[in-house]
Amino acid sequence: MNSSDHLTLDAKARKVAVLGAGSWGTTFSKILADGGADVALWARRPELAREITESKRNSDYLPGINLPRSIRGSSSLEKVLDGAEQVFLSVPSQTLRDNLKAVRDLVPHDAIVVSLMKGVEKGTGYRMSEVIEQELGIGDDRVAVVSGPNLALEIAKEQPTAAVVSSANLATATLVAMTATNPYFRSFVNTDVIGTEFGGVLKNLIAVAIGIVDGVGYGENTKASIITRGLVEMTDFAVAFGGRAETLAGLAGLGDLIATCESSLSRNNTAGRLLGQGYTFSDVVKQMNQTAEGLSSVAPILELALSKGVEMPIVSQVAEVLAGTMDPRDIAPHLTTDPMPQGE
Amino acid sequence: MNSSDHLTLDAKARKVAVLGAGSWGTTFSKILADGGADVALWARRPELAREITESKRNSDYLPGINLPRSIRGSSSLEKVLDGAEQVFLSVPSQTLRDNLKAVRDLVPHDAIVVSLMKGVEKGTGYRMSEVIEQELGIGDDRVAVVSGPNLALEIAKEQPTAAVVSSANLATATLVAMTATNPYFRSFVNTDVIGTEFGGVLKNLIAVAIGIVDGVGYGENTKASIITRGLVEMTDFAVAFGGRAETLAGLAGLGDLIATCESSLSRNNTAGRLLGQGYTFSDVVKQMNQTAEGLSSVAPILELALSKGVEMPIVSQVAEVLAGTMDPRDIAPHLTTDPMPQGE
Repeated sequence: MNSSDHLTLDAKARKVAVLGAGSWGTTFSKILADGGADVALWARRPELAREITESKRNSDYLPGINLPRSIRGSSSLEKVLDGAEQVFLSVPSQTLRDNLKAVRDLVPHDAIVVSLMKGVEKGTGYRMSEVIEQELGIGDDRVAVVSGPNLALEIAKEQPTAAVVSSANLATATLVAMTATNPYFRSFVNTDVIGTEFGGVLKNLIAVAIGIVDGVGYGENTKASIITRGLVEMTDFAVAFGGRAETLAGLAGLGDLIATCESSLSRNNTAGRLLGQGYTFSDVVKQMNQTAEGLSSVAPILELALSKGVEMPIVSQVAEVLAGTMDPRDIAPHLTTDPMPQGE
Repeated sequence: MNSSDHLTLDAKARKVAVLGAGSWGTTFSKILADGGADVALWARRPELAREITESKRNSDYLPGINLPRSIRGSSSLEKVLDGAEQVFLSVPSQTLRDNLKAVRDLVPHDAIVVSLMKGVEKGTGYRMSEVIEQELGIGDDRVAVVSGPNLALEIAKEQPTAAVVSSANLATATLVAMTATNPYFRSFVNTDVIGTEFGGVLKNLIAVAIGIVDGVGYGENTKASIITRGLVEMTDFAVAFGGRAETLAGLAGLGDLIATCESSLSRNNTAGRLLGQGYTFSDVVKQMNQTAEGLSSVAPILELALSKGVEMPIVSQVAEVLAGTMDPRDIAPHLTTDPMPQGE
């Protein structure tokens, strides 16, 4: 980057598109608009697009939040993507591939495409950035991902928050980070896309474990031990797949893990709490009316871990609780039955 | 360790002494007794010693907790230390040196001496294990420290907890860890005494910062960012003084940090919350009737950091809030005013 002044000035009028007007897509649109960008937000439902444009509200997903005047909602992908320099994707992770097929010819030729999603594709195990590269046929130097301790509603209330923008190309990450920075939201950069994306997936599994011990009634010691040992599992997994340990120790690993584990609003946490209170897996799915991402990731992640010989004792215990073969009270930070003291 | 069977059996009748019957010393006595040890607990006040022995209670410090029958309280140092194979110290950190002078001739010649304390000596900056070595004139192979995510009241309620026992001598750490292990409390071992002790000191400073943003009203994103970046500061500091980064990423660093930051019972947290609500340093000291360890450590730790060229932006901001030169609302996870995105 040898033209930082140019970039700084440019950012103020940058034209960007956000696809997906759920709570995170809408919050991210606000982040970008409050950073000076010109934001077009795509909502599948025309009435939601209209509410965003006319009332500057998204009352279903962000009740009580006033959106910046400069955000325009639209249900037309064509209009939203026209002239966009950066395209941010915030659709349900399992619908990403189909959504990309629909926009393949609409994304401007030289736009940067940014995933705001956390998940892996079922069946294939592909990360979101991999699905983007495959479906849009673009190189990894034009793809970025955003992650970190980012509970949407808190950011929408403009509470100070930090995030990480990751791309194989540092210049791409830096450009996106500048666009996604404003007085209450600061983006750092790294080039470890693998570690950044897996951090966002794996933390959901540990959050389920935390929910379980919450439900059982254990306190902060137990939870702190599980978070600490859980981070070790997350790191071992990510490193085995080519990620860097430092990334997992940062905002996209530890930071996101803590925020998710401590938020009582998290679906993964809630699902875990119900399990800890003694409900079965199928009870929980029924009660929640939707599957928490963390529950459905347990089996595929353990399969991937097995393929690389990575041990994940906490995630394995969550799987046993889900299968009904372990009493939730027995999920403990000891994580070993070896009677001799072990190194950490 | 080539005689593990011998050690395992031995542990069941090991004679140990605990000096200090506050909430942590009493809880640790329970941990040891529940692990099978024969425990003598020294209380300064004879009436407290009597309550422990006769009622199996310590109603001032652990209300509602029944202590194991095998714990004997006494206000006689001589009686408590007689024949002790391991001596655990849990007195206020600034009184340690004087307390050690009083027991120098009473500690059995070959006993292992274990610090349960978290702090550095004012004026000298010595860690607790260093004070022990100096005052008892014993080698570091006979000294150990215990740390980790260890909120006393939760452990007293037998919630599953993990801890770290650290000694320069692995056999010493292992022996202590075996004595301090029972069905609800598991001790891991390491040989990084410096990292283990500094973890326990530094986490209090970050807990004050978390208290401040709690008091201001910020949520989980902000707190998770500060914990994540705070761990980086803690690690840089400990490594500069000869500790290992892995130790800070473990139970004695990250684990203890999370438990302390999430506990609303922590004095450091409470002090920070009052500061965040707009009270001045002297208001806080008055309201709390005692100084939180974290508040009094800020200046000495920043001095030590400066001497090694370690940057501690979060701790520095806490110092500014204490000095009244920074508005608590401005403590943010951004931690830099550089307009260009930075690496994590």
